[in-house]
Amino acid sequence: MPELLRHVGIAGLGLVGGSLARDLLARGVEVTGYDRDPSKVERSPGAGGARFRLVHSAGEVMTAPVVVIAVPVAAALDLLAELAPHVTPAHLVMDVGSTKRDVVARAAALGIGARFIGCHPLAGDHRSGWAASREGLFAGAPVFLCPGREADPAAVARAAALWRALGGRPQLMTPEGHDEHVALISHLPHMLSVALALTLADAGIPRNALGPGGHELTRLAGSSPEMWGDIAAQNRPALVAALVQLENQLCSLRSALETTDAPGGADDAGRFLRSARDWSAA
Amino acid sequence: MPELLRHVGIAGLGLVGGSLARDLLARGVEVTGYDRDPSKVERSPGAGGARFRLVHSAGEVMTAPVVVIAVPVAAALDLLAELAPHVTPAHLVMDVGSTKRDVVARAAALGIGARFIGCHPLAGDHRSGWAASREGLFAGAPVFLCPGREADPAAVARAAALWRALGGRPQLMTPEGHDEHVALISHLPHMLSVALALTLADAGIPRNALGPGGHELTRLAGSSPEMWGDIAAQNRPALVAALVQLENQLCSLRSALETTDAPGGADDAGRFLRSARDWSAA
Repeated sequence: MPELLRHVGIAGLGLVGGSLARDLLARGVEVTGYDRDPSKVERSPGAGGARFRLVHSAGEVMTAPVVVIAVPVAAALDLLAELAPHVTPAHLVMDVGSTKRDVVARAAALGIGARFIGCHPLAGDHRSGWAASREGLFAGAPVFLCPGREADPAAVARAAALWRALGGRPQLMTPEGHDEHVALISHLPHMLSVALALTLADAGIPRNALGPGGHELTRLAGSSPEMWGDIAAQNRPALVAALVQLENQLCSLRSALETTDAPGGADDAGRFLRSARDWSAA
Repeated sequence: MPELLRHVGIAGLGLVGGSLARDLLARGVEVTGYDRDPSKVERSPGAGGARFRLVHSAGEVMTAPVVVIAVPVAAALDLLAELAPHVTPAHLVMDVGSTKRDVVARAAALGIGARFIGCHPLAGDHRSGWAASREGLFAGAPVFLCPGREADPAAVARAAALWRALGGRPQLMTPEGHDEHVALISHLPHMLSVALALTLADAGIPRNALGPGGHELTRLAGSSPEMWGDIAAQNRPALVAALVQLENQLCSLRSALETTDAPGGADDAGRFLRSARDWSAA
């Protein structure tokens, strides 16, 4: 691990925070962790568990020079305010939430914009909590780094080094650009899965009646409603815009299907299906 | 294997036909197979390959008492007409397509309704062709059996016995009920995946930029456009109705998201997300 990453504090030991703790412990890093429900967290996870210190207040994670806030995005805003008075010039503070505009703006408003780097590892699944956490979650995953305008370049470099050490692929983005991007690549697929689940629920079809494809498309709908309600609220304009684009696309596709009848897809509907296949295969 | 299933003819050795051949050969059954492109088919698949006879015309599969038509749904209608004059009272003829109304009606019109059972194993994925076929594809899969009104009960029983022997779970349905059901559980998820792929393509986002969730939701979009164009054409009314339901659901969800702001999902959007999660968890 890079020299400066010998001790990391993590507030929130769920899927992402817990996986981060496991990865860091496995690499010889000391981890100070906090969770509001410590009963769910293993005392001594994996081989490096002896270097794992579970503390009783979020503030205690600030004893580490590198701190990661890994709680749901709405709670992260409050926690940032709680920790801000204890941030020193020696600190690097990151979060791992799925939206970046609000949290980066909050850090700037709290006067810790130089030391705060908004991060978003594109990893995980519909499960949550320590029990779902695992080593290697970030291997190969894109990690969006979204420094605010006040961010110290050295802090950006340290954040990138941490994620790179865990196998992640850091990509710099503005917080606003990030939120628009993930509205399309992550939040839109999520809401689509929810809409499909609700359509099937209304039709009285249980999930176990689905084939492998339908099962796959409704998996995300099983995610935490609290977590995703907060994400949607923080990324409302971009998500709504993405949904409108999808609705228009669905409407065009349906119109094409309504007139389809040439066998072998030699018609309008076939053109839609071929474009989608070509994009998939690219 | 049941006594009457010692020799099965299969016309079309793609994902489903090929997997059927492998499963039957593995169980000691003799298989006579036909494919319009025999160069792609292994001559001697698996341990039972010596019992595998590859023939040069579709008509030769009728040398077997049990025949399975495993070609895309539009081609199946034509093939059924070609084979019909050779169907004897000793034959059982099945298909495996994703739509059932048209093929069962065609069998009745051709005067072979007593000997024909429309079948639809809910298995497979976005891949196609012999190369994607594999043993065990039908293990645990629902298999919809859709006899027409003229179907011989003994033929229904033999068809059910065949699928059961391969680990499938036969379920009787009317052809019309089947098509409405699969419009929701299979064709709708498929078209949703296509619409998402096209939305992302329009936004200039390549598939490899997606996280695990988005990747999963766009997998079906990579399926054969020809196969799915035909399915959509044969199941147009039910599929269009399902799409309209989904569009309404998406629109309601978007409206809720447009007004969401209570943290922790304590609002309208939260209600949608919780309903979807509850359905998933049921």
